[in-house]
Amino acid sequence: MKAAIMGFGTIGSGVYTVLTTNEDIIAKRVGEKIELKYILDLREFPGEPWEKLVVNDYKTIAEDPEVDIVVETMGGVEPAYTFVKAMLEAGKHVTTSNKALVADKGADLIKTARENNVNFLFEASVGGGIPIIRPILECLTGDVIEEISGIVNGTTNYIMTKMTMDGSDFADVLKEAQDLGYAEKDPTADIEGHDAQRKIAILTSLICGQQVEYTDIPTEGISQITADDIKYANAVNRRIKLLATSTATGNTYIARVAPYLLDPKHPLYSVDDVFNAIFVHGNMLGDGMFYGSGAGSLPTASAVVGDIVEMARHKDENIPLEWKEEKLELADPSGVECRFFVRVKSSKDDVKKAFGDVEFVEGIVEGEIGFMTNVMSEADYDSKASSLDVVKMIRVK
Amino acid sequence: MKAAIMGFGTIGSGVYTVLTTNEDIIAKRVGEKIELKYILDLREFPGEPWEKLVVNDYKTIAEDPEVDIVVETMGGVEPAYTFVKAMLEAGKHVTTSNKALVADKGADLIKTARENNVNFLFEASVGGGIPIIRPILECLTGDVIEEISGIVNGTTNYIMTKMTMDGSDFADVLKEAQDLGYAEKDPTADIEGHDAQRKIAILTSLICGQQVEYTDIPTEGISQITADDIKYANAVNRRIKLLATSTATGNTYIARVAPYLLDPKHPLYSVDDVFNAIFVHGNMLGDGMFYGSGAGSLPTASAVVGDIVEMARHKDENIPLEWKEEKLELADPSGVECRFFVRVKSSKDDVKKAFGDVEFVEGIVEGEIGFMTNVMSEADYDSKASSLDVVKMIRVK
Repeated sequence: MKAAIMGFGTIGSGVYTVLTTNEDIIAKRVGEKIELKYILDLREFPGEPWEKLVVNDYKTIAEDPEVDIVVETMGGVEPAYTFVKAMLEAGKHVTTSNKALVADKGADLIKTARENNVNFLFEASVGGGIPIIRPILECLTGDVIEEISGIVNGTTNYIMTKMTMDGSDFADVLKEAQDLGYAEKDPTADIEGHDAQRKIAILTSLICGQQVEYTDIPTEGISQITADDIKYANAVNRRIKLLATSTATGNTYIARVAPYLLDPKHPLYSVDDVFNAIFVHGNMLGDGMFYGSGAGSLPTASAVVGDIVEMARHKDENIPLEWKEEKLELADPSGVECRFFVRVKSSKDDVKKAFGDVEFVEGIVEGEIGFMTNVMSEADYDSKASSLDVVKMIRVK
Repeated sequence: MKAAIMGFGTIGSGVYTVLTTNEDIIAKRVGEKIELKYILDLREFPGEPWEKLVVNDYKTIAEDPEVDIVVETMGGVEPAYTFVKAMLEAGKHVTTSNKALVADKGADLIKTARENNVNFLFEASVGGGIPIIRPILECLTGDVIEEISGIVNGTTNYIMTKMTMDGSDFADVLKEAQDLGYAEKDPTADIEGHDAQRKIAILTSLICGQQVEYTDIPTEGISQITADDIKYANAVNRRIKLLATSTATGNTYIARVAPYLLDPKHPLYSVDDVFNAIFVHGNMLGDGMFYGSGAGSLPTASAVVGDIVEMARHKDENIPLEWKEEKLELADPSGVECRFFVRVKSSKDDVKKAFGDVEFVEGIVEGEIGFMTNVMSEADYDSKASSLDVVKMIRVK
């Protein structure tokens, strides 16, 4: 069986490493050898062992009937979409690690794959090496998934962990993360939550079987979280994590990306550093969690190669996967109920007038107090908080 | 599609609840309704809604060509084995939650299923509701699994958690667990590690594709763990958990069930109460963990129903699953290297003579000292410790 990799960056080269390092065991699991025939890249790689595999035109791959399986690790929506679509239409299976492509064109490419009796898989697009998409589609099939919430961005989790452990400021930790290669030079997509937003859109689409537009999901990042917020979190024995979360309500979901205060009893509380984890609550299963390396060359490539094996085992067959193009209207996020932690420059009396009897955290920042509300809807919170001088509000999970 | 449940105890009745509660979403996922036609039990259940489904002879099910899928939730090797074998030979798919049956007869029943072009699945036999078997077989297929270690027994994890949190003695917590229904009247299989031993045998068999005999796996339970051991664990900032662990070495594995001291950085450290979790280390993936409810009626039934959906989707097809009857010779466990925590009634000088420069924990129990060795093989430890008056040794992960 012959394969091609489109895009030989961090993940694409990781796929090469996995396929060569574990060649024998993969061949045993598939029943035949997976031979890499092409690498699509604009660079030449002179002297490298894969030099002779490099081609510059995707049509060379699309038009070669020997190629059964194509890996897309280029990133971004275009030209990845054009290339992937062409491969599927040429009767080739495709796996991708590209969450931007999947969030935007997932339904379309799944349909194209079905029409051509091949598969379009994307295990690596959420949670890197963590198996989460296939477990949702093929294991948790006896359950109504009532909630899925994840720490799905390693960069922000590293930053939040360092801020929590060292008490450092956001800007300092971001710089350190950039120096270590954990954060990109332009870190916007990570720290403002855009990456997590696409990932929770994908997970929610898979659970409901319809298109969830990531642009419909209210998203806040962690760039506004300060060392003072961490001190308040410590004072109430909680940790701040950037969560991407989706909760069932009626026939739809409420989704959000935002920093949350987590209780030590929550399974996501202990997920530190660059690790990712996805928490699932099923109406029969109860709580479950999938934990591991959410990024990085080899872990992500491990998930891509898992898809390759799955497609090789289903070479002549489309594995049914429901994700209709029809758009799901998400519910109004102001309806979701939770507790809120609030920092205010108001008097205790004013807070009590608005929120009733609450416990206060004092002495962290001069001239302000902190408190945690009871469980209420966000609309209710907004209305009650409008009379106060709010410095910061963080939701509590 | 018609199904039958053999054994209507805790799990069997849970399967009934899952199938009826989530009937519509399961039908949507399968593409047709799963109708429960028979319940095999020796009891009659007068007045219950399922009363008319009850039959007393398994042949009624085996001989009914309308039944496609059979659930085995009786427990124990016999008569479960005879019944399951008959169902597979009659061309029916079977799923089971019965670890005793799978550990003992897994290879045989997988072969029987293949010969009859049906499936024998057992996701619920390890980790209850946690998806672990299908993720190993269908997701982590690009990796060499170098280690799999789990907290796979809820009863013992509950006991260890309570002993750690409250400082209570083993006997008191066991009694409390029995009163709460978390431990059975005869708790031997749980507290002596026999349950965990079967589960790690199953996981190791799946990873290596051969029969691993659970009786070959050295097994210690938690009945010898005392409140003093917990104090020592606290003193070295670790927690004691009963682990079932398997590590690759050469072409085989070293497996063991025993209490281990876990570091706070280990993903299994935070797995408390009756929860289970399975840690996996792949040569490409790195660390991963699967967490959730490892027992209980509905979580376990959720996994059984996941198998039902999988089998219904592959009604006319055997899903390849490699688990040969040929036995794998496990490696000598004294070869595995780790650190050891040791309580001795010997002098510091004698300890230093045997183990070199170590840090001591004093003042926990009069007349003894504790210390942690460097990393060494168990054979090496045994030889060095032979000169000391050892009160207790606990391995460190």
